[in-house]
Amino acid sequence: MNGPPPLTPAARRILAKDRATLARVISAVENRDPAIVPTLRALFPRAGPARIIGITGPLGVGKSSVINALLAHLRGLGRSVGIIAVDPSSPFTGGSVLGDRIRLERRPGDPGVFIRSMASRGHAGGVAAATLEVTRLLAAFGMDIVLVETVGSGQVDVAIREIASTSVVVLVPHLGDEVQTLKAGLFEIADVFCVNKADLPGADLAAKDLRELVSLAASREGWRPRIVTASAREGRGIGELWAAIEAHEGYLDAGEARALAERRRISAELLGLVTERVEREVAEALASDPAVGQLLDRIVRREIDPHTAAAELAPPARRRSRRR
Amino acid sequence: MNGPPPLTPAARRILAKDRATLARVISAVENRDPAIVPTLRALFPRAGPARIIGITGPLGVGKSSVINALLAHLRGLGRSVGIIAVDPSSPFTGGSVLGDRIRLERRPGDPGVFIRSMASRGHAGGVAAATLEVTRLLAAFGMDIVLVETVGSGQVDVAIREIASTSVVVLVPHLGDEVQTLKAGLFEIADVFCVNKADLPGADLAAKDLRELVSLAASREGWRPRIVTASAREGRGIGELWAAIEAHEGYLDAGEARALAERRRISAELLGLVTERVEREVAEALASDPAVGQLLDRIVRREIDPHTAAAELAPPARRRSRRR
Repeated sequence: MNGPPPLTPAARRILAKDRATLARVISAVENRDPAIVPTLRALFPRAGPARIIGITGPLGVGKSSVINALLAHLRGLGRSVGIIAVDPSSPFTGGSVLGDRIRLERRPGDPGVFIRSMASRGHAGGVAAATLEVTRLLAAFGMDIVLVETVGSGQVDVAIREIASTSVVVLVPHLGDEVQTLKAGLFEIADVFCVNKADLPGADLAAKDLRELVSLAASREGWRPRIVTASAREGRGIGELWAAIEAHEGYLDAGEARALAERRRISAELLGLVTERVEREVAEALASDPAVGQLLDRIVRREIDPHTAAAELAPPARRRSRRR
Repeated sequence: MNGPPPLTPAARRILAKDRATLARVISAVENRDPAIVPTLRALFPRAGPARIIGITGPLGVGKSSVINALLAHLRGLGRSVGIIAVDPSSPFTGGSVLGDRIRLERRPGDPGVFIRSMASRGHAGGVAAATLEVTRLLAAFGMDIVLVETVGSGQVDVAIREIASTSVVVLVPHLGDEVQTLKAGLFEIADVFCVNKADLPGADLAAKDLRELVSLAASREGWRPRIVTASAREGRGIGELWAAIEAHEGYLDAGEARALAERRRISAELLGLVTERVEREVAEALASDPAVGQLLDRIVRREIDPHTAAAELAPPARRRSRRR
């Protein structure tokens, strides 16, 4: 053992709760700037054990309201809270998410809150890895709890299980047929369901429906998703929501589940980091390596096919076992 | 030059318009089965020059109706048509897409039509590469035109530009604020806008809005997106839609645009194929290589950080230029 990696100046300032440095380092992570890696290395063994809670769900269910209400609740309990809002950069959903973003309360002047939105550019695995990295930065900064908001569309929300220890799926009483038909898919994600806008008619029925689906679904490693009804705008049900989240966190601590989840999470992170690294190298070669440009030209002329070219271009697999 | 690669039995049958073989080979591509690669290699230089038309847009705008109407129009012109419907496998959108799928007319007994839906599993680059591969299979099968339907959510629709030569974005008069705010983002995708459900009030206004946005936006390499209003269910505007698509195809043929787009497409495909290959190798190593398992354990114990581990795990970059 060589001991922990040396502290960098930026790492030292984040541990000393310097907000400007935190913001700057998060930007560097978001931009996948390799120069920030020594700081990430230094903080990795020194970050505190923050709870990472994912909040996801379709557009329009009031995720931001739920997060605002949870934030007020947690500040009332004296817990410090970091919030990461992951913007999918899709042309179709980006705008609405931006709308959500504006509705998140920034609480300037409260030292126990740090809110940051992140764009989800590029490779999904890379986005997940960057978001996980930012949760660690917020933990190193001293936050007790990190809330990660993602929009329910595509690969990013499934990736929330590779980031958060507890995942909350927010729904509303009337989801429309489109979401209803695949509600079962939400069970892959949800540790807790929050039926928001409980003041709308049909909330009890929606919760009952969910309860039936949960009772039919196989329990996942001994945990059955909890269902909470809430009205975030009126502040109702938020204590119950937090209690359900804490119940799941307690379940994780009681057995092997937290260690298993942590190993799965780090495995997914490694896969994302390695794939992202190779993708970057290959993209650079495609853009600027003359030999690779000639290979492209040969494909365009149908002299070679893409599969043969990919085999030529792919870096050889590293055989770790044999190197040892 | 070594001449074209040898024909496999499956490749020979696809060129002879054997539908069962086509279906089986598409499944193999969808499952990323490496055993099918020799057939893909054989067909690559032998596939005909099909036009690949992307049809995308948010949920609920009637993409399937537009495709059914286009299909009828094209069959009336005597053109053979392949259709690929890309299902995003997201838990939030999967259900609705499944709904769309049911509404696609299958036209059994018409030898000039082949319809296939594909699940978009795994890496976005891999999905795009698989879809592109299936367009080639349909071209090899003899289809004049291939329509590729994707749902407007996330990375898959942006990838439509890496597959189709002309991309149509379908919209409806009342999109809601969420999509409105980022409509500009659609200009990255659209060669042609189709304002569907023109029987609804506001269709003319929506088309006028779009026209203003198009006139403000910079033209992309000499092409300004065309705007067509249609009512697919009533069969109105579909001839105009096809004329707009053909105008864009004509623009591509008039200058360098088609060759440039083809090179960009193949570059993206190569990037997807190489990244997918490395991702698969690394995922296998993470799951089954004991040495990699030990590396994971060391990260969990905070003895090594993920970035250092990723650098150990990443295959070394292949330097093509130097090898030559």
